[in-house]
Amino acid sequence: MSDTQWLTPDQQRAWRAYLEATTLLFDALDRQLQAEAGMPHGYYEILVRLSEAEDRAMRMSELAARTRSSRSRLSHAIARLEERGWVMRTDAPTDRRGQVAQLTAKGLGVLTAAAPGHVAAVRAAVIERLTPEQIAQLESIGTAIVEGLCPGGDGAIATS
Amino acid sequence: MSDTQWLTPDQQRAWRAYLEATTLLFDALDRQLQAEAGMPHGYYEILVRLSEAEDRAMRMSELAARTRSSRSRLSHAIARLEERGWVMRTDAPTDRRGQVAQLTAKGLGVLTAAAPGHVAAVRAAVIERLTPEQIAQLESIGTAIVEGLCPGGDGAIATS
Repeated sequence: MSDTQWLTPDQQRAWRAYLEATTLLFDALDRQLQAEAGMPHGYYEILVRLSEAEDRAMRMSELAARTRSSRSRLSHAIARLEERGWVMRTDAPTDRRGQVAQLTAKGLGVLTAAAPGHVAAVRAAVIERLTPEQIAQLESIGTAIVEGLCPGGDGAIATS
Repeated sequence: MSDTQWLTPDQQRAWRAYLEATTLLFDALDRQLQAEAGMPHGYYEILVRLSEAEDRAMRMSELAARTRSSRSRLSHAIARLEERGWVMRTDAPTDRRGQVAQLTAKGLGVLTAAAPGHVAAVRAAVIERLTPEQIAQLESIGTAIVEGLCPGGDGAIATS
């Protein structure tokens, strides 16, 4: 393994800054959402995606792709959200094997109540810390990483 | 809550690209490390930090700060690493209340074996996807977010 190409000092600083920022940020957002809305950040993302879909419903396979979640992790989260009455699962009408997750009125109410506090936290921790140039860079950096890990784009994400 | 300042389309695209990239990336790195080294990414980060410390040992409180980890999450991880014989805990010589975590020879061996594969994964997923300009931007963006969440810098991180 003596031919390993280690990170240069510049690359290592960038990688560590990103790792530290992400660890701190995800913890902060989880704390904020747990304290104010009783849910982790991952649940919030699921509710947001469902709220934006037609009829507030989405196939589990598509929801997994949109939230970049594995099927098993998503199934676990949806089961918890169903217990709370925030999401309802039904069989897909056109596909015997598929299941659809739908946001309930109760779930929409919870999301609507949680959103202002969450957006304020994201603004304070990220948006207001960055220049408009950095925000544009964050988008292109994120997109480049997503395209590397999911070359097919949104429609062809491996969800297993 | 009608005075909520929602994200603009530019800000929302950047935030979602970052979230998606991070979710995909952390899953990919976890899978790579689990498959090749039998550990999640969080354990790897702990071993790296210990390997860089004097005597390959660090107080738990400092290790928590360096890995941006809560004390409870770190304690859990260190207990698992101790079971594997990769880390050893001892009482701090100068402070009755403190504990020190030390990388064992076995832990160093595991880390040394895991590092080339992990670095190759980080290079492929992040470094080689970005221009040198974007790598510099990633550092300044990460640093700005860390400073917002930890205003005191490295020495004054809240670890509770």
